[in-house]
Amino acid sequence: MTKTNQERLLEWLSDVHAMESEAETMLKGQAARLEHYPQLRQRIQQHVEETREQARLLEQRIEALGGSRSTIKDALGSMAASLHAAGNAMMSDEVVKGSGMSYAFEHLEIATYRAIIAAARKVGDAETEAVCRRILAQEEAMADWLAGHLDQVVLDYLARDETEGQTAKR
Amino acid sequence: MTKTNQERLLEWLSDVHAMESEAETMLKGQAARLEHYPQLRQRIQQHVEETREQARLLEQRIEALGGSRSTIKDALGSMAASLHAAGNAMMSDEVVKGSGMSYAFEHLEIATYRAIIAAARKVGDAETEAVCRRILAQEEAMADWLAGHLDQVVLDYLARDETEGQTAKR
Repeated sequence: MTKTNQERLLEWLSDVHAMESEAETMLKGQAARLEHYPQLRQRIQQHVEETREQARLLEQRIEALGGSRSTIKDALGSMAASLHAAGNAMMSDEVVKGSGMSYAFEHLEIATYRAIIAAARKVGDAETEAVCRRILAQEEAMADWLAGHLDQVVLDYLARDETEGQTAKR
Repeated sequence: MTKTNQERLLEWLSDVHAMESEAETMLKGQAARLEHYPQLRQRIQQHVEETREQARLLEQRIEALGGSRSTIKDALGSMAASLHAAGNAMMSDEVVKGSGMSYAFEHLEIATYRAIIAAARKVGDAETEAVCRRILAQEEAMADWLAGHLDQVVLDYLARDETEGQTAKR
């Protein structure tokens, strides 16, 4: 079961690529459904664009390290699918749970990029390290944005929630 | 579909209680499996104790607000179960993915407690606010600990991973 650090690095890059693909699907769905939270919607749409670019950068690194399309496609399938199912389990307070799930997912990505950066440094892969530091900064910015706007989303939600004739969850 | 903020507060308390129950199961499983990461194991065990106490405090608040045992039991079942499945999907590098999942789960809890605190303030429920601020501080401390130790866990893992005859994942 021994793996070289180089092999493990490639595996983690494939894992995080699968996460980004899943993130794109989740974020696009969220943005499309939101009606009454324009600022949140706009920030999510921006992050969808970032996520697409991130996936492209990751594919380049995976290919440069000798990974294949199928490596990319199958990695982490069950984990990402489970998180997707968890996201789908959002109930009547969709925007609040959605924000919480997005915040959690950003931190799963942050931890994963930090692991990849440590591995890339260890094997001396400066290019992968640089790409992942750049992506990490975007994930941290998204997490910070969500943290900074959560209270307002909750208060807007609660105000709509108790008002007859208003939809709160989207 | 209109709900009073008071009703929503009770619902969110039940949600987060379900999360804490799930967290206890996940954390106990992780701690029991870890062999070569004693510091991480010890911190997780400490957090298991905190989590048990948190669940007890939440039950008191749920009962004080008129919630029942069944409210507690059924809430958020599918979401917590999906997160559990995601945790189970951790693969050969279990300690690294486990740390990433724990880090993400802590942030789901952090977002949820922040939403509950905002709701409790809005309805003037000082007791629930105080309890949740106390728990939030413990979740933030656990998240900070994981963030501060992640790089070392990854480096320990990578060193064991490439060494014949050593188990890295636990």
